[in-house]
Amino acid sequence: MITVLSGGTGTPKLLQGLKEIVDPIDLTIIVNTLENEYFSGVYVSADIDTVLYTMSDMINDELWYGVKDDTFITHDRLNELGCTELLRIGDIDRATKIQKTQLMQRYGLLKACEIQAKGMGIKSKIIPMSEQNSDISIVTDIGELEFHDFLIKHQSKPEVLDVKFSKVAPSDGIIEAIRNSEAVIIGPSNPITSILPILSLDGVRDALKDTYVVAVSPIIGSDAVSGPASKFMKALGVDVSSIGVANLYHDFLDNIVIDNEDSNLKSQLNQIVNKVTITNTIMNSLGVKKNLAQIIIDSIP
Amino acid sequence: MITVLSGGTGTPKLLQGLKEIVDPIDLTIIVNTLENEYFSGVYVSADIDTVLYTMSDMINDELWYGVKDDTFITHDRLNELGCTELLRIGDIDRATKIQKTQLMQRYGLLKACEIQAKGMGIKSKIIPMSEQNSDISIVTDIGELEFHDFLIKHQSKPEVLDVKFSKVAPSDGIIEAIRNSEAVIIGPSNPITSILPILSLDGVRDALKDTYVVAVSPIIGSDAVSGPASKFMKALGVDVSSIGVANLYHDFLDNIVIDNEDSNLKSQLNQIVNKVTITNTIMNSLGVKKNLAQIIIDSIP
Repeated sequence: MITVLSGGTGTPKLLQGLKEIVDPIDLTIIVNTLENEYFSGVYVSADIDTVLYTMSDMINDELWYGVKDDTFITHDRLNELGCTELLRIGDIDRATKIQKTQLMQRYGLLKACEIQAKGMGIKSKIIPMSEQNSDISIVTDIGELEFHDFLIKHQSKPEVLDVKFSKVAPSDGIIEAIRNSEAVIIGPSNPITSILPILSLDGVRDALKDTYVVAVSPIIGSDAVSGPASKFMKALGVDVSSIGVANLYHDFLDNIVIDNEDSNLKSQLNQIVNKVTITNTIMNSLGVKKNLAQIIIDSIP
Repeated sequence: MITVLSGGTGTPKLLQGLKEIVDPIDLTIIVNTLENEYFSGVYVSADIDTVLYTMSDMINDELWYGVKDDTFITHDRLNELGCTELLRIGDIDRATKIQKTQLMQRYGLLKACEIQAKGMGIKSKIIPMSEQNSDISIVTDIGELEFHDFLIKHQSKPEVLDVKFSKVAPSDGIIEAIRNSEAVIIGPSNPITSILPILSLDGVRDALKDTYVVAVSPIIGSDAVSGPASKFMKALGVDVSSIGVANLYHDFLDNIVIDNEDSNLKSQLNQIVNKVTITNTIMNSLGVKKNLAQIIIDSIP
């Protein structure tokens, strides 16, 4: 069993490779839920849906959000009506969200995700990190913003001063999944808003200390491969580099995978992490994704 | 000013004719809200939406429900997912419902309808009969059913023993609208589940007594032109005929419009209502709708 900690963009790319070389039944994916909130009457758990769509080959993997070839009839009409929907929810995607909302209200988010994954033919276990609602807010130079406001409305442009999120309880089964895994892979997701929330759950860091953990750095040079990760790292006083990433995970990390371009960081990283793996981490083709996945799997002792 | 009391099928047909011969700005339409409920996270007020779509020429006037030429991508996907949506909500229609839900939560239903009507270019005033949630249940030989369960899931087939609905408060402006009108038109909607709920609002019957009221009978012979009206009338011990309809409205009715086919009922009806108007009430073309509307308008003293 391999457990993957995932956010919404970088890690799903890696999952596309992983599911080709590992039997999906042997994968457990623990997904960030911090940014979940209601939009247009439906519960939107963007990272979970991205993982569901990735594992069922439905993902729009240009945007890493929503369903490939989806239509936007309801969304566009809402805009026409002056009732702008902050998230661009497609018509097929909306059905997923309506179903999840109903299942969640009846059975809770954990069971809802299990039912949806099964319904999409997914054999891996997809676990939302928490069933509790959490708030995340981004303190910026123009004031405190809701996460999606910052990300979409303000296109991640404001200067970030701090990132705040509430403490929530881990979903049932998370600690067991980590402890029963041969290895945990921390995907190249935003360390601050996707991975730290998972790490902040009671018991997770301790469980990781007892398990082999390999992390793929989402930073190349001094910038994130995608998204506003570097802004968030800077705001929290974390060095925007693979060194900064390693420092965030230092108490449990066994192996950090960095890009060829950062090979010069190896000796510095080795003072923080036992093993440093250097390869191509820019996952712009299925070949690269599979290759990266294979290198990670091969590195597990 | 003309005020129309409306349900969801028969009266909208008449509205299509009325709005061609009366300046829409002189029309106020009070709409049944009894069957309103949440579906898939959005507030569904089927009769209000039918009136909105009718007055904005968007109505699917084969089904008298939803938007003409709408698509059903989300709805069909929900069915595929095994998350059956009892009401067939189209993609454009869903946007209307999402907008109404959001406006309603912010401003209440009355203001929400006003904003939506304005947004659709409607000049008439469309007033939901009440802003309060109400329950309607149909007591049948197979048990007590929710209204939409009876209507859609059970296709109006069970024997109806009783119809129960909760008492709600009238929306602001209803009594004034009736009192300030030259005439009130009761459209050929289901007398039991669409019109009686409006009549049961405090003050409505009294206001109608002081206003000229013309009702179009939805019954021809001993059957309703459409829908399960006759079952409901029978269950409440009301004669299924224009006589039964006249009796329901007898305390305020000035003129009943019946179909040519029922001309034999004239003298019997004249014992209940002052004036009986006989014409073609089967509104299967715009010509018939306009003609019927003209006859009604001409009958107002």
